[in-house]
Amino acid sequence: MSEQPETQQQPPLAGVAPGPSKNELKKAAKKAEKEKLAAEKAAKAKAREEAQASSEPDYAVQNYGKLPLNQSQDVSGNPRASIASLSESSAGQHLFIRARIHTSRAQGNKMLFLALRQRLSTIQAVLVVNPNTVSKQMVKWAASLPAESIVLVEGTAQQPAVPVESTTISNCEIILQKIHLISGIEGRLPFTLEDAARTAEEYEERDAEGNKVYNSVGLETRLNNRVLDLRTPISQAVFSVQSGVTSLFRSYLESQGFLEIHTPKLQGAATESGASVFKVSYFKGTAFLAQSPQLAKQMAIAADFERVFEIGPVFRAENSLTHRHLTEFTGLDLEMTIEESYEEVVGLLDSLFLHIFSGLNEKFAKEIAVIGKQFPAEPFLWLEKTLRLKWGDAIALLRESGIEIGDFEDLSTEQERTLGALVREKYKTDYYILDKFPLAIRPFYTMPDGADSRYSNSYDFMMRGEEILSGAQRVHDAVFLEQRMREHGIDPASMKGYLDAFKMGVAPHGGGGIGLERVVMLFLKLNNIRRATMFPRDPKRLEP
Amino acid sequence: MSEQPETQQQPPLAGVAPGPSKNELKKAAKKAEKEKLAAEKAAKAKAREEAQASSEPDYAVQNYGKLPLNQSQDVSGNPRASIASLSESSAGQHLFIRARIHTSRAQGNKMLFLALRQRLSTIQAVLVVNPNTVSKQMVKWAASLPAESIVLVEGTAQQPAVPVESTTISNCEIILQKIHLISGIEGRLPFTLEDAARTAEEYEERDAEGNKVYNSVGLETRLNNRVLDLRTPISQAVFSVQSGVTSLFRSYLESQGFLEIHTPKLQGAATESGASVFKVSYFKGTAFLAQSPQLAKQMAIAADFERVFEIGPVFRAENSLTHRHLTEFTGLDLEMTIEESYEEVVGLLDSLFLHIFSGLNEKFAKEIAVIGKQFPAEPFLWLEKTLRLKWGDAIALLRESGIEIGDFEDLSTEQERTLGALVREKYKTDYYILDKFPLAIRPFYTMPDGADSRYSNSYDFMMRGEEILSGAQRVHDAVFLEQRMREHGIDPASMKGYLDAFKMGVAPHGGGGIGLERVVMLFLKLNNIRRATMFPRDPKRLEP
Repeated sequence: MSEQPETQQQPPLAGVAPGPSKNELKKAAKKAEKEKLAAEKAAKAKAREEAQASSEPDYAVQNYGKLPLNQSQDVSGNPRASIASLSESSAGQHLFIRARIHTSRAQGNKMLFLALRQRLSTIQAVLVVNPNTVSKQMVKWAASLPAESIVLVEGTAQQPAVPVESTTISNCEIILQKIHLISGIEGRLPFTLEDAARTAEEYEERDAEGNKVYNSVGLETRLNNRVLDLRTPISQAVFSVQSGVTSLFRSYLESQGFLEIHTPKLQGAATESGASVFKVSYFKGTAFLAQSPQLAKQMAIAADFERVFEIGPVFRAENSLTHRHLTEFTGLDLEMTIEESYEEVVGLLDSLFLHIFSGLNEKFAKEIAVIGKQFPAEPFLWLEKTLRLKWGDAIALLRESGIEIGDFEDLSTEQERTLGALVREKYKTDYYILDKFPLAIRPFYTMPDGADSRYSNSYDFMMRGEEILSGAQRVHDAVFLEQRMREHGIDPASMKGYLDAFKMGVAPHGGGGIGLERVVMLFLKLNNIRRATMFPRDPKRLEP
Repeated sequence: MSEQPETQQQPPLAGVAPGPSKNELKKAAKKAEKEKLAAEKAAKAKAREEAQASSEPDYAVQNYGKLPLNQSQDVSGNPRASIASLSESSAGQHLFIRARIHTSRAQGNKMLFLALRQRLSTIQAVLVVNPNTVSKQMVKWAASLPAESIVLVEGTAQQPAVPVESTTISNCEIILQKIHLISGIEGRLPFTLEDAARTAEEYEERDAEGNKVYNSVGLETRLNNRVLDLRTPISQAVFSVQSGVTSLFRSYLESQGFLEIHTPKLQGAATESGASVFKVSYFKGTAFLAQSPQLAKQMAIAADFERVFEIGPVFRAENSLTHRHLTEFTGLDLEMTIEESYEEVVGLLDSLFLHIFSGLNEKFAKEIAVIGKQFPAEPFLWLEKTLRLKWGDAIALLRESGIEIGDFEDLSTEQERTLGALVREKYKTDYYILDKFPLAIRPFYTMPDGADSRYSNSYDFMMRGEEILSGAQRVHDAVFLEQRMREHGIDPASMKGYLDAFKMGVAPHGGGGIGLERVVMLFLKLNNIRRATMFPRDPKRLEP
């Protein structure tokens, strides 16, 4: 459950340097360290130049150096190896590998140990002076390459005498014959990938004086330098999982006869709700960014597409800085006709989530393990038969624990979380369905419960105490829909195109919208939605 | 090649009624027909009321009528049948079917023939008076239901004595025992689905006096009433094909190790090019809508994701009304690292397109046939080994046919089309790759050809003479990129976040962006991109 030390609920201004240091002493220490790093770097650059310019005859000159700019001139056809695929059984193979230098450690002036990195995988590569292929100048030059440089190496795989502990591949290393620079580093990196990629335990380690042993890297620093932060194994794993969620979402729905649609984000009117909407200058007029594909996907149902889904951006002009709100996120939306009851929709959505959860555990076990090292989380729990908690029962549960709340009052974020904890304790699940919301707290297009119109045929799906899907059976009768609009203070004339669709006959239908980044954040317990978003947008952040 | 009669290259103002009639006579005829339809409709409504209010005892009263509003109260569990799945082998089955009334034809007052429709499929349903289940009042009531009403029917499948010609299912019909209204029609429909769904031949039919036999429905009328137009078999088929393209795109890329990403559409700066960009009010500042995920997907490569794709909206504030431009369309974008040559990218893109083309023909033969009835097209031709036409050879081909054009001049749309026709004639293909564009006519981030920097490692993929993908190897070197920016008059400081990514090392890479709707339009030869877009947006249209 531990929030990582660098986590801040309140995100900083984009571009503003973080000030996490707590006292002058610490600041001074940092400054000294930075200066040391800068000096080392300058020394390396100098060494690189010297190595290149050395007058000593160099028999290895063909085997190292900077490659000319790749403009697709030359093609050797040599296949490149994937580090993840290497093991002791690779021993003896002659390999070509494009990778980043993750770390570099010289031993004297004749030997260099590199950790080479591709996404989640690292391997040790050893460069040793020998009379034919590797010269001292070559070792010196290679030692001068800064971390994160992209190199092309050529060498032979072998099983190391002792398993290598510091790389993800421990039973294979590469003895290098050639090393060339593909892409170098300009200037200094804002943080090292090692610092950004440590485990939760490492960040907590203290020396004898109680000071932290390792630098942590704050979320704001990570987001300001997102490209570098995204190279960490954690980020690489998070976005593999994210891609997995969309893939599982889609494959399940395709197997259930759903059609993928694309509906316009540019809207002629700010229609869906009173919630804030972004305005767009549209030639000489104004357009609005869609707050969800709600109206469009219902119109697709009116157009007889029967079962539709859409994956696309959703825009919310809400000026709130929280761990779970963004101004732009990815909506996984679906809508389907109902034959008899909205149970058909709830059942399908539930099966969909179970498909996603088990698919993630099955296909992304490695990624989930990598993420767990930096964000330790109790494994996500769910039941074979999902808990359906009716609104009334949820209120009762909250009251039992001493919370005062009205029968038809909406839950605060805090109450939602408390409810999640109570549910986990009582039912041993992090995933449940909250059903039969009070009608008054849902949008106008929500179908009232046929038996008790104070409630509605609507539901939220919850993960670790937070909402990740909101949905309902919708009102499909044009006359009733118009009445509900008026009851919500909406002028039906302002939504003519939508209302017209219902006048041409619409089957009963329902659906829901899932926040992709929330599912990823909560499944992995990343604590902040920005970590589950490649380039997050909030009221204070539009870059990078 | 024939453009349909209702096609108009210049789309109308949204909401403006079309004026396709050519003379007063025709107008008068139309008015008379409309009045006739209105009168018929009024009579039907009256009959419906009478049938319901009839004092004659009605033994069938349980078997017809309007169902109460579906609020998910009652669940029978009776499965609903899919019309498409019915055939002579269904004979004897007792079925429940939810469908639209496509057409309705009474025979006397004891018999009614309905065509029931679900998406692409129609079937005949017969209601005949009998002493136990079907009364005269029931037939009268059912006959009064207007076309497009959604009904739930119960009946028995049988093989018709003579195959039914007027429905898509000819070897099965339903003898009805019950018919209930689920969702009715308010007001008059702007056009009949029959008129909207005729074949190209029917639209061309003339009576003895040379007048058209059937009403065609203009594109602007269709778009103004898009929900109704989307119910036509043609539209149903088009969007199945569209969904198929994205599905094939994605499954192919996933099989090649690509990760799906989502990048922000809200941008802090209007960066990518001089082309027009939409401005958004962003709290107290301004944001801009992304003209493509170009910069973000390159940053994903800089972040080591290696191979990425994105499916999402692309916004272009270009004030042009053509058959192939929209202000918002769906981009299928991909970007990948290059080991040695951009041939790797071209090869992958080519395999991707071949996968899509053959997948469409294989999985959507029925839909393609349906579309071909209204939009007859010569089948889309492609070669086993795709034609790669170098820029110089394309210019030579154009000159041979008498067109004057400079060596490094960009092609006009007209010249592009001519080139497509010349290629089709010479090489028998509608699909080819135009390679090695002049550097000067491509964006700043395009990699120059290593051998001749007047050209570039960039390409367009063409279908039926129109561009459907534009792509290139990109400049990955920070210093060179900055130089190229300056040469294009772009201040590098204005793109700092992007440029910074390159200073941290980036592998050589390339990619491309595909316009989804264009692929659908050109593969099916729909002649206007709006037909391949569910709710199209152009400078004059933001609704519905």
